[in-house]
Parts: sequence; structure tokens; C-alpha cells
Amino acid sequence: MDNTKEGMHHCKFEVPEIIFGRGLLSQIGVCARRLGGHKVFLVSDQGLFDAGWVDKALKYIMEAGLEVVLYDGITSNPKDHEVTRGALEYVRQGADVIVGLGGGSSMDAAKGIAILVSNGGRIQDYVGPDSIIRPLPPLVLCPTTCGTGSDVSQFAIINDTEQRCKLTIMNRCVAPDISLTDPDILATLPEEFVCTTATDALSHALEAFFSVASTSLTDVHAIKALRLVSQSMVAAVREHRPEDLENLARASLHAGMAFSNSLLGIVHALAHPIGGLYDANHGSINAILLPEVIKYDIPVVAEKLPELAWGLGHRADGSADNAAEIVEERLDAMLEAARAPRSLRSIGVKKEDLPELAKKALKDVCIVTSPRQADEKDLLALLERAF
Amino acid sequence: MDNTKEGMHHCKFEVPEIIFGRGLLSQIGVCARRLGGHKVFLVSDQGLFDAGWVDKALKYIMEAGLEVVLYDGITSNPKDHEVTRGALEYVRQGADVIVGLGGGSSMDAAKGIAILVSNGGRIQDYVGPDSIIRPLPPLVLCPTTCGTGSDVSQFAIINDTEQRCKLTIMNRCVAPDISLTDPDILATLPEEFVCTTATDALSHALEAFFSVASTSLTDVHAIKALRLVSQSMVAAVREHRPEDLENLARASLHAGMAFSNSLLGIVHALAHPIGGLYDANHGSINAILLPEVIKYDIPVVAEKLPELAWGLGHRADGSADNAAEIVEERLDAMLEAARAPRSLRSIGVKKEDLPELAKKALKDVCIVTSPRQADEKDLLALLERAF
Repeated sequence: MDNTKEGMHHCKFEVPEIIFGRGLLSQIGVCARRLGGHKVFLVSDQGLFDAGWVDKALKYIMEAGLEVVLYDGITSNPKDHEVTRGALEYVRQGADVIVGLGGGSSMDAAKGIAILVSNGGRIQDYVGPDSIIRPLPPLVLCPTTCGTGSDVSQFAIINDTEQRCKLTIMNRCVAPDISLTDPDILATLPEEFVCTTATDALSHALEAFFSVASTSLTDVHAIKALRLVSQSMVAAVREHRPEDLENLARASLHAGMAFSNSLLGIVHALAHPIGGLYDANHGSINAILLPEVIKYDIPVVAEKLPELAWGLGHRADGSADNAAEIVEERLDAMLEAARAPRSLRSIGVKKEDLPELAKKALKDVCIVTSPRQADEKDLLALLERAF
Repeated sequence: MDNTKEGMHHCKFEVPEIIFGRGLLSQIGVCARRLGGHKVFLVSDQGLFDAGWVDKALKYIMEAGLEVVLYDGITSNPKDHEVTRGALEYVRQGADVIVGLGGGSSMDAAKGIAILVSNGGRIQDYVGPDSIIRPLPPLVLCPTTCGTGSDVSQFAIINDTEQRCKLTIMNRCVAPDISLTDPDILATLPEEFVCTTATDALSHALEAFFSVASTSLTDVHAIKALRLVSQSMVAAVREHRPEDLENLARASLHAGMAFSNSLLGIVHALAHPIGGLYDANHGSINAILLPEVIKYDIPVVAEKLPELAWGLGHRADGSADNAAEIVEERLDAMLEAARAPRSLRSIGVKKEDLPELAKKALKDVCIVTSPRQADEKDLLALLERAF
């Protein structure tokens, strides 16, 4: 029996309880109470506070009969010291349930705080497998962008400010108990973040679909995410209509369910060191790298291309001979129309750093599931083409 | 704001941890141990014992360092007294984790036993909502047919032998902790059960797709299930090849994930009283009712038909004007080629019982999510057409 081939058919699929719908931020307190909480530690950021959503969340939590402490000191690419300070504050306040309300930064910080309050030590201690021993406090995550997927994933990405690199924590226990999405929150998301977070979802879906660990359970969600992004990303960026924003929120959820279980690839392996070194926007980095990495992967994933072409909005039967071409063209056209950034140079990456970035990417956990094995030279070539 | 319409976009999605792959029955003990169990109560049936799978399971459980008690007295359409006896045996033996290995009958019985050992009383007490108060013991379910979906669903169906009816227990807590599928087990499934359990999965997928509670999260799984059944049901029945059987096992899983979250419709609302009255095969009943119910539903689900036609193997773009015709034809051809039973008369249903069956179906919980509201007269007409 061919064990390798058989191994490819094994799959594991785990997702938290998912609640999705317009207006459902109103359930944020009910969710925290249902998990047994009495005092909520609400992790969020200044932007959401300014847009009025934090006040709404506080009100809903109190209406559910719970106490609440606000911790809104999270910045983009959340920092190790923000997590440490949050954990100390959680303990000092005697909170017993964590709610993360925000983009990937607030949600990943909430995960980091959850790890530290029950396991102690420094967030750097939890990068390796099996390093989180004690169960985390109850965790509810509410995404407020259209891209991160952190609300369903078993990943948390925290910046190590001393080493200037991203720490990738991958552990099933950092998936929350409840993922609660209210797409109405996207109404106040600035245009550039609609684009960059939607391209993050796009990368999640594409990398999950190409991953060597993908299965039918993850592929159906990856393809649905792609169809929704194809349908609504450009319109959402340009017109900001609630239906398109809802489609993108839904795409983020589907893409998150896919990549949390099939993992990612070279785009994210490269994006993590770049984000660590420059504090640049994660979605922008992905949007820039994506076309080059897809071109690089295409020769080894030929049999998946007709379905992918269909996912990207090509309407024809699944036997297109020119699927590779269609995929490349549609992806390029979509990124262009959504006004995504198109070069590493344009977001401040320095040419002399590329060799170091390639070296670091080779050690990122995301490279393991890339469909095409890349060495340092391949990665450097990809970075140079995207420069 | 249109609250009704908005309400339609709300969704909840919950599935257990899923493990799927050829040869993975070997992990059955490891799963039970991971849930904290020391003494396994293994619920199964005579057919699986005769095929050698129960012995294998016992060996794997003991190799994981656990004690194990076998309870293999489950018959098809599992009976209330089998559940009661199982619960008493579980307590007497001091078991602390339940593993169900079998088709829907063994798995639903395992769920029923889990309810009684922690909540007491009679299984009849747990039909209504919110009637299960205390948490269930850890539960691992391993399906051995290609249809039930019980291993991922929040349903358990038990026969009330006194009232001669099926009790439909619908509660999120009866979804197991782990769903473990080893498609190799299907190698010993008799041909007629390949057909009837695959048609059960087919009904789950179709009813979930048409359900008023369906969402993009359930639709992707319903369509994937339909594609897999279309691709492999007839071949699996006729040739019994491992690849086709694996596709059907996978279809069952996808269909289960869909219907557990979107619920079902008239096929199941009618199948439950029929199964309760005649102890007939559930998959056979579904296969017979399905074409008539789909014809009945089609006028109210027009916008979903092109995607459904594609799911049933029609290869063309999604704008087919004749989608309804394609759906009816493909469904009919598939059932015919798989040698499914085609009339209620042929499985022993008596004409004089039809009015009573229609009356009972109207009270079944599955009718609530039917896309087309049916009264008693409509249901009787459907039964007569399927007679």
C-alpha cells in the first residue's frame, strides 16, 4: 500500500462555534456569559474606539449582566510588550473571560494574553509545538476587518520587538470558543483597509487551496471565499455597499476555516519576516507577493487550476486548458482594480534586506505546506520579482 | 430595515473535531484517551462484530492503555429499551467515555445512552428543546456506513417501541466530541446498504441545500456532498472500489456538516413516522420520497437550481434555464442506476396508513425548515405519489 498517498487523504478539521450576521454585535455579552464569564477583559484598539464600536460592545456586555474592563492599547502588528501588559492587567482586575474585538492585531493580542494568564512566562516561550500546557480562559473573538481569519484559526502572530521578527504561534488551543462576526462593523472600515484585509483573505484562500495539507473539507471553504472575494472586493473598495462588505466578511470566515486546517504557504512564510522587520501592513505585503508566488506554484498544482479559475469567477466548465492563464490574469486584474499595492519597494522594503528575509522565511512554519519546495535562492528570486 | 430578510443572513455553524482517513480506526483508542477516558463503553452491532471490525476496535482501544466494555446489542432503528439497557450497563461497569462504532443506529444509541447516564429518566423525556440539563460524558463516534451523518450532527433518532414512532432528539450537546471516519470499513458493507445509506446522504445534502436555514457555510458542504455522491454512488454500488467508497464516506461527512446546521425538510419529516411504524430502512424510505419532495420544492427554490444542477454533475455554466429539468432527470437516473427502491408499496407501507403518516409528519421538527410550507393534504398527496 502506498502510505504516502494514503497519508494525503487523512484529514483533521476543527473550527470553533461560529455565529455570523448583521447586527449580532449585540450578542457579544451573551456569548461571554454563556462561556461562564463574570468579568470580561475586552481587548480592542483606538480606531474601533473612535468609530464608536467599543462603546457599543461595552454596553452590550453590561446589558448581559457582566462586568467589563477595557484594554484598548493594541497597535497594528501587535507587540510582545502589549501582550505582557494586557496579561498583567487581566490578572490585576480579576477578569475571567477574554473578548477580542478588532482586526488580526487585537484578536491575536487577545490570544497572546489568554496564553500568558494561564501559562505564565513570556510570549516567546510558546512558539514551539506542545508548549502551551494549561487550558486558556474562555475566549470570544469578533473580527472587524474583512481578512484576518484569526477568529477561527489556530494561529496567533505577535511581534518580537527585540528581535524585530514575527512569532508564529500555531496551537489548536488558540482557536477561540466562539467566533462572532457582525458585518455591519465594516461600514466604518477605511477604504485602504477594505482592500488590504480582503487581499489577506484572498491569500488565505489561495494558499489554503494549494497547500499540501488541503482536503475536500478545506477546499470547499477556500473556493467559496475566492468566489465571494471575486464577486465583491472591487465593488466593496469602490462603493462600500453593505452587501459587498458582508460578502467580504463571509469570505474572511470561509478562508479562515480553510487555512486554519490546511495551513498556508510561501506568501505567508515571506510576509511574516517582512512584517516583523518593517511593521508594514500584512495585507499589503500579501497582495504584493501573491501573484509571484501563485505563478511559482502553478506548475505543481495543474489539476486544481480549473476549479480555481471557476472560484475566481471564470464561468465555464471545469476543463479549461488555459486555466493557468485565466488564474494569473484574473488575480492580476482584481488586485489592480482594487488598487492594491503592487511592489515591495512601494511599501518601504529595502533591497539590501532581501537576502536576510529569504533566509528567515525558510524557517517560517508556513513554508512546510507549500505545494512547491523552495530553497533560499528560490525565495530570494521571488522577493526580487516582487520588489 | 427588513428584519425578516436580515434574519435570513444570520447563521450559526458548529461541528465537532473531525478526523478522516483510510486506516484511522487505529486511532479510536487514542481519541477516547485524549478526552480523558479510562474505561470505554463501546456501542456497536452484530453485523460489525461479524465483519471483524469490533475486534479490531477492541484491540486498538486496549493498545491505547484503556479498559473497554462491549455493548453490541443495537438493532436497526435503535429501540428505547436498547438505550435504557445500555445506560444501566454503562453505570454498572463504571465506564467514563462512550464510543459509538456503527451506522446511524449504533451512533444514535450511543448518544441516547450518553444522555441517560448523565441526566437520568427515560429517553422520551429529551425530545423537547432545552431538556438536556447536565453535560454528557465524552463521546467519540465512528461511522461505518456512507450515509447517516450522526457522527457530526446534533440529532439522535430513537424508536419509541410502545408508541411505534421515532423520537427526534435535536440538541447541540448530542454532537460528539470527535467524529472519526475510516472509509476502509466500508469494504465489508453489503451492496444494498451502500445504496441505501448513500441515498440517505443524498437526502441530507439536498434537504440541507433547500432548507430555509441554509447559509453559505452549509451550502458549500451540501454541494460537495452532492458532487461526491453523483461521482461515486452508482460505481460504488456496482463495483465496490475503495476510491468510490471513500468518496461516499466523505460525502456523508459533508452532508452531515450541512444538515446538522441547516436542518432538513419534508423527506425526513415523512421518513421518521414511516420508520417508526414499519421498522423499515431509513435510507430506502428517503430514496423513495426524495424525487417527489424535490419536485414539490422546486417552484420555490428556483434561484438555487443552477448550482444544484452543477452539484449533481451537470457541467455547464450556472445559468441553465432548464435547471429544474436537469435536477429531476439526474436525480432520477442516479437512483435508478444505483438500484434504489422506488415505491413505498415495495418496502411494505400500507395504503390505509398514509393519512396517519401525513398527520404525524406535520408534527416532526424537520418540517419547520422546509422551503415550501406544506399542510396535511400536501403531505398526503406526496405520500400517495410515492406509494
